[in-house]
Amino acid sequence: MEAIRRAAVSAVSNQRRNRRIKLNVGGAVFETWTHTLLKRPGTRLAQLARAMEADESYDSERGEYFFDKHPGIFATVMHYYRTEELHTDHNICGNIIKGELEFWGLTELDIEPCCWGHYNRFKENKQTLAEIDDTFTFNVDADAFGKNPSPFMQFKKKVWIFLEDPTSSREAKIYAIASMFFVLLSIAVFVLETHHLFRVPYDNYNGTSTITASSCTRTLTSRHTCCCRFNDPNELPYDESEPHDSMTYLDYICAGFFFLEFAARIFFAPKKSDFMRQPLNVIDVLCLLPHFVSIVMKSVDPTDKSSQIIKTILALRIIRVLRIFKLMKHYTAFKILVYTIKVSTKELLLMVIFLFTGVLIFASVAFYTENSTFTNIPIAFWWALVTMTTVGYGDKVPQTEGGYFLGSLCVLCGVLVVAFTVPIVVNNFTLYYSHAQSRMRLPPPKREELQK
Amino acid sequence: MEAIRRAAVSAVSNQRRNRRIKLNVGGAVFETWTHTLLKRPGTRLAQLARAMEADESYDSERGEYFFDKHPGIFATVMHYYRTEELHTDHNICGNIIKGELEFWGLTELDIEPCCWGHYNRFKENKQTLAEIDDTFTFNVDADAFGKNPSPFMQFKKKVWIFLEDPTSSREAKIYAIASMFFVLLSIAVFVLETHHLFRVPYDNYNGTSTITASSCTRTLTSRHTCCCRFNDPNELPYDESEPHDSMTYLDYICAGFFFLEFAARIFFAPKKSDFMRQPLNVIDVLCLLPHFVSIVMKSVDPTDKSSQIIKTILALRIIRVLRIFKLMKHYTAFKILVYTIKVSTKELLLMVIFLFTGVLIFASVAFYTENSTFTNIPIAFWWALVTMTTVGYGDKVPQTEGGYFLGSLCVLCGVLVVAFTVPIVVNNFTLYYSHAQSRMRLPPPKREELQK
Amino acid sequence: MEAIRRAAVSAVSNQRRNRRIKLNVGGAVFETWTHTLLKRPGTRLAQLARAMEADESYDSERGEYFFDKHPGIFATVMHYYRTEELHTDHNICGNIIKGELEFWGLTELDIEPCCWGHYNRFKENKQTLAEIDDTFTFNVDADAFGKNPSPFMQFKKKVWIFLEDPTSSREAKIYAIASMFFVLLSIAVFVLETHHLFRVPYDNYNGTSTITASSCTRTLTSRHTCCCRFNDPNELPYDESEPHDSMTYLDYICAGFFFLEFAARIFFAPKKSDFMRQPLNVIDVLCLLPHFVSIVMKSVDPTDKSSQIIKTILALRIIRVLRIFKLMKHYTAFKILVYTIKVSTKELLLMVIFLFTGVLIFASVAFYTENSTFTNIPIAFWWALVTMTTVGYGDKVPQTEGGYFLGSLCVLCGVLVVAFTVPIVVNNFTLYYSHAQSRMRLPPPKREELQK
Amino acid sequence: MEAIRRAAVSAVSNQRRNRRIKLNVGGAVFETWTHTLLKRPGTRLAQLARAMEADESYDSERGEYFFDKHPGIFATVMHYYRTEELHTDHNICGNIIKGELEFWGLTELDIEPCCWGHYNRFKENKQTLAEIDDTFTFNVDADAFGKNPSPFMQFKKKVWIFLEDPTSSREAKIYAIASMFFVLLSIAVFVLETHHLFRVPYDNYNGTSTITASSCTRTLTSRHTCCCRFNDPNELPYDESEPHDSMTYLDYICAGFFFLEFAARIFFAPKKSDFMRQPLNVIDVLCLLPHFVSIVMKSVDPTDKSSQIIKTILALRIIRVLRIFKLMKHYTAFKILVYTIKVSTKELLLMVIFLFTGVLIFASVAFYTENSTFTNIPIAFWWALVTMTTVGYGDKVPQTEGGYFLGSLCVLCGVLVVAFTVPIVVNNFTLYYSHAQSRMRLPPPKREELQK
Ligand SMILES: [K+]
Ligand SMILES: [K+]
Repeated sequence: MEAIRRAAVSAVSNQRRNRRIKLNVGGAVFETWTHTLLKRPGTRLAQLARAMEADESYDSERGEYFFDKHPGIFATVMHYYRTEELHTDHNICGNIIKGELEFWGLTELDIEPCCWGHYNRFKENKQTLAEIDDTFTFNVDADAFGKNPSPFMQFKKKVWIFLEDPTSSREAKIYAIASMFFVLLSIAVFVLETHHLFRVPYDNYNGTSTITASSCTRTLTSRHTCCCRFNDPNELPYDESEPHDSMTYLDYICAGFFFLEFAARIFFAPKKSDFMRQPLNVIDVLCLLPHFVSIVMKSVDPTDKSSQIIKTILALRIIRVLRIFKLMKHYTAFKILVYTIKVSTKELLLMVIFLFTGVLIFASVAFYTENSTFTNIPIAFWWALVTMTTVGYGDKVPQTEGGYFLGSLCVLCGVLVVAFTVPIVVNNFTLYYSHAQSRMRLPPPKREELQK
Repeated sequence: MEAIRRAAVSAVSNQRRNRRIKLNVGGAVFETWTHTLLKRPGTRLAQLARAMEADESYDSERGEYFFDKHPGIFATVMHYYRTEELHTDHNICGNIIKGELEFWGLTELDIEPCCWGHYNRFKENKQTLAEIDDTFTFNVDADAFGKNPSPFMQFKKKVWIFLEDPTSSREAKIYAIASMFFVLLSIAVFVLETHHLFRVPYDNYNGTSTITASSCTRTLTSRHTCCCRFNDPNELPYDESEPHDSMTYLDYICAGFFFLEFAARIFFAPKKSDFMRQPLNVIDVLCLLPHFVSIVMKSVDPTDKSSQIIKTILALRIIRVLRIFKLMKHYTAFKILVYTIKVSTKELLLMVIFLFTGVLIFASVAFYTENSTFTNIPIAFWWALVTMTTVGYGDKVPQTEGGYFLGSLCVLCGVLVVAFTVPIVVNNFTLYYSHAQSRMRLPPPKREELQK
Repeated sequence: MEAIRRAAVSAVSNQRRNRRIKLNVGGAVFETWTHTLLKRPGTRLAQLARAMEADESYDSERGEYFFDKHPGIFATVMHYYRTEELHTDHNICGNIIKGELEFWGLTELDIEPCCWGHYNRFKENKQTLAEIDDTFTFNVDADAFGKNPSPFMQFKKKVWIFLEDPTSSREAKIYAIASMFFVLLSIAVFVLETHHLFRVPYDNYNGTSTITASSCTRTLTSRHTCCCRFNDPNELPYDESEPHDSMTYLDYICAGFFFLEFAARIFFAPKKSDFMRQPLNVIDVLCLLPHFVSIVMKSVDPTDKSSQIIKTILALRIIRVLRIFKLMKHYTAFKILVYTIKVSTKELLLMVIFLFTGVLIFASVAFYTENSTFTNIPIAFWWALVTMTTVGYGDKVPQTEGGYFLGSLCVLCGVLVVAFTVPIVVNNFTLYYSHAQSRMRLPPPKREELQK
Repeated sequence: MEAIRRAAVSAVSNQRRNRRIKLNVGGAVFETWTHTLLKRPGTRLAQLARAMEADESYDSERGEYFFDKHPGIFATVMHYYRTEELHTDHNICGNIIKGELEFWGLTELDIEPCCWGHYNRFKENKQTLAEIDDTFTFNVDADAFGKNPSPFMQFKKKVWIFLEDPTSSREAKIYAIASMFFVLLSIAVFVLETHHLFRVPYDNYNGTSTITASSCTRTLTSRHTCCCRFNDPNELPYDESEPHDSMTYLDYICAGFFFLEFAARIFFAPKKSDFMRQPLNVIDVLCLLPHFVSIVMKSVDPTDKSSQIIKTILALRIIRVLRIFKLMKHYTAFKILVYTIKVSTKELLLMVIFLFTGVLIFASVAFYTENSTFTNIPIAFWWALVTMTTVGYGDKVPQTEGGYFLGSLCVLCGVLVVAFTVPIVVNNFTLYYSHAQSRMRLPPPKREELQK
């Protein structure tokens, strides 16, 4: 008797527990059994299934529970209760999902591995793309020149904007183009002054002109001729010549312009310390260094041209190549490249580590199998890298059958390692670039509205 | 007393403000609280939430607001009010979104960065793909030959269509194939006339036949033999020979055909000025130039074969290679390539700038670290480019340990730069090509319907 | 008075025309104005909007129009009426769309370009993937051996299945492995018999053994030594030696096996004509040819080893390399490759045409700018191709400054052309392969069910 | 009369059979005709259409059939009944689909080929990604040290965790860094001890120092000089020198550390047999081998340095390069690479087979067309592989016109084969890597929760 009663109660309570329930989520109606909702205790819906009509979301008029939430994500939540697996809907941006899940008492960790990638990609993109949006417009810090700037400060700010933002006025654009022209001129001088057409023999070396023909001539008379390809008597050896005066003058003109530009920029910069911390400004100073050193040297001893110090100066001149980065100042794609490299350090390291591992192994085996070609492991490194990246200069080539087999393996590994690691690094860049491009195409006034 | 009353009023107004509201968008029902809609003042829904029953969309019969709009996009708009972030639905084409957003009082700039790319890709594709659709069918401008053309004009139009559209009739197709045959023949002649099998010594140079063997023979007797690879006595030096007569005849036959073709086409062209502005027609004229110059020269002085003028003519002959583009006239893939290059100028420039920056830096450092191999920076440019693109000829190879290290960096940078920049350019082409291919497979009559 | 009445009538008719209409498509409710539906005359919905209650789909009970159709696609159709642009829903397979559109009176050509690619990709994939599904199982044509086969025919069929389907029984598998072993052995013999380790001097050439050392020895005594790299006295010149007897025996054993196999297969083949039309069987016959010719020759004149006929036989031997394709018979990936190449002829042609155009132009310019290195255009073709594909042997390298510039352009164009054309061909293969792989992983019985 | 009655009955039964039916799937309402459901006998819905009101899912109150199932997938199921083709919804994760289909009485094999790929990709990813999740955290098998471990066992466990898990404590991290330092040092010694800067001549070879200059000197006096590139008198031939003592000492110090480390690890390992089965531990033992052999040898005969045994020891030293894999122990990307290679064996084999087939064919034809350059097929293999992978060393280059044509084909095939096969292998790695990366970024405590 008691048993029957108990069973009846149990059945009733069962039935009660397993009532059909109607959930209105933002207008979309979902129906399920209460026992489905009770599967995941501690979540918002399990709470609802226990509280039933007492739940705050209950709308007695219509006999449903109303939530002003995203119906699409609720469908995936609903399915989680039915099957205990949380698979997200792939047409919904991953960034919506987190907040909604939290409302229902779930976490992003409940998402299954197969859908995690989709969810996470959006989450990561959101942050980086927002950061990229910030790199577009030129923003003068409003407070940098004081809140109620004096007329002088207002002038300073005006010049600063003129110097830094080519889009601010027509004059600023002309100045920017002139500045870029000087950069290009300076690089052209840097490159061409090494070419024999733009070089002359040292004035004070006339006496030793027979030595000028030097090493190559001697080679020509000997029998080892086939190694001496590109030398002809018209070519001056680099060590025994100096750039033509016109080159030197052009170089100093450029240096002068860059010096004035730098002086103006540091004078009008709102915060000197911030200014000197920017890499491009450090490069500016570095590029002027060789000229200063050279002027100082010449004023000390204008005739000595062969001393060790002069050679150091010559080596210093290479710093000037960094000026190419000045050209990049207003080039968005370059900023994106720099940003990508910063973000993808881990992936670049991966590429280097994988390549290095391959190079190490192949170089070692090559050294031990073909000692006559690869006289030491560091030299074999060079061969292995050149082979793995499919450059294949051919200056070192295996020549035994064991070496051929090893070389074949090395090539295959190289193709795979490059193919494995390159897409991982590149994907970021492609994403950032296309994002930046599409942002750039927006009309300028609206773009600023975007920054607010 | 007053405070209580005010509080009561406020509560009532609060309650009033926060009523549940039912929106019917194209049949799909959405429900939310009015205070949710008031979050974004100035938008269509905020207006509705203030006006309530007074809103023009109110359907008093059913107690809901009806909008004949896209329900899918309204779901994302709804979510914008709930979370203040606008994430689009990724299964909806981006081109639908703009118009709908505008109706609801939002703009495309409200879209979050993570969803912007999806939205924008569709927007961009729409325009370019529509343009590509236009390049398919051959359209004779209806008015070009006059509205009520005379019988002669009708004949002119008929011939014009025959000449330009190979799909217009069977005869037009045969003519097009004949024309392509002459192009191929002309190119074959152009290529083969430089090969020693198709060349004979100058007739009037018999006396100097001992000199013919010239440079190579002299080399063979000297000791620098291993640099003189492919020369054998049977090979005639190019400078001292002329193409076999049969080659010359074939060339003139081709030139004759192209001249007649061009004359016909310019005669039957509806608008001469438009005709001469098309690049392929300019190429037509250019390719005939060498022949005309050559005929003029020969009629002036038929014996002089070594003068400077003749050499200029020889150099002019290279123009004939442009005839290959005549072959491309009816080849869709080529049109798409040209279109892609036009659209992707910015991306191609990006590739060139990145490569140039890398080449400049590596060439400079290579020049300063290994001066004996890289005698000047322009030469080092060649090495750096050949290395960065993984061609690796091996004509210049670093030979010091510093050079090996630099070369390794150069290879890695090259692999990355190429990998970074190539996909950006290529994506466009792949998209356009597959679009064009799928359009081409449509049945022809329907395709024209598409153009209307 | 009349005007007022007319205006009133017009207003009424307007109101009548612009009634709100409720469409129930497969359970999902859509609502719109009748005037929206009238925008596209001649379609199913415009018809409905004119007929109203008289339409056959009208459900008077609920006051709605019911269609048992896909609600998702109807949403896109609905939007077409609202905005006059047909954008498809991207989570719906393109193959569903066509039929639904036709029901509503639209065609696939109404789809906008931006969504066309999505739609079309599915359409194309469906057909090719269905074809690929057919290549999996081995199907003996049921009627090939007669409807009520005699016992002999049943035996024939049994043997045929044994020969052709390695999965039919354990014995068939063993036979297939043995067959593959003979193929591998035959190829190993083919390769190794050319290596000097497996070669002996001609028996009847003892008298001329001094000549054996021949060309290379002579070279060694001369001064042109650095071109003669890999020759050492132990190496027999290929022309003056013959394979070791063991190699010849192994070759004949393999040939014997293949002959027997082929005889058996042609005997048991259900249809001889079909059998001989299969490429792999033609290869079978071709590969046996050199052996037959060789036997016939030897029986005619067993001593003559230097005649022209023998040399022809030697050249014939190369046919045996085709045997590698016998190995591919049961290798799915190879079938997919062949299928891909068949389907992608157009794309492969595109690659060849683009590369050829580039090669032609660069080779011509190279010939005219650097005549000393590139002595004729065909030779320059080789250089241009080797450069454009980034192989870069270095056997021909530009050596003037103009040549360097041209070479740089050539490399860049090559990188782009390869990058442009390769993905178009490759995409198909990747798709087919992954489809085939996923099909292969299904349990075998179910896979056959799939074929029904 | 009878006929009329029968027709009437039939019409009634028809009408009855073709009633409109309302299905409530998880709250979403679907409507269709019963005859649509009867199309697929044996499925859940056909059963329902026969049973009608008698079906257990019938809700008489609302006149609908209720199922607590996923509404999205039911939409595709519904469409299957309408069109007899099962196309899945592409925004739904494939892993949801199977279970739902089974509930409705369908199988995954009913999915059309065009949608199969989408479905299957998710199915495959789920399994592999779950496996990858397992490789992250370091789990000490709880029972390995006994359920109620003695104090000694607890100490053993503590040390074991210290040795194996660098994230367990700060000391463990320091130890791990020290261990990695020794690995790097050991590899640096391994590499540098082969370089002539770190080598000295054999002490007991002073008498033969004139021979030391040996082969190279002799070459220098002879005329074959241009083959002898990188040798200069300062360089010691590897065979006649030994590493500097400091190198040898460093090597023994590293070996000592690794020996102690290994001894400790094997002592504290919970299960010796499991320990010795791990590849990294086997490598540990192997790398110590050369040192032990060398010590044993020296103690036997400390003066004999030229014997065959010593040479074997030298060759053994190469094993030490495997130590690089010790470095990889805690590097996730490396684990993913290994995992990818294990999973993608089939795809790697595909690449090798395709490349080998191409190499075989091109090498054979090259051998028969240009016998002077490619003296046997194995040598031609090397050329063909180097060409197909676009390495292009240039040590062997075709030099006849037939060879050029063949080489061009070889290059094109190579580009295609590499392009065809690489993406298939690489896709897996990219997927796994990005999955693992996104998992790694989760906060550590939550990650462990993930593992439960
Ligand atoms: K190369
Ligand atoms: K290369």
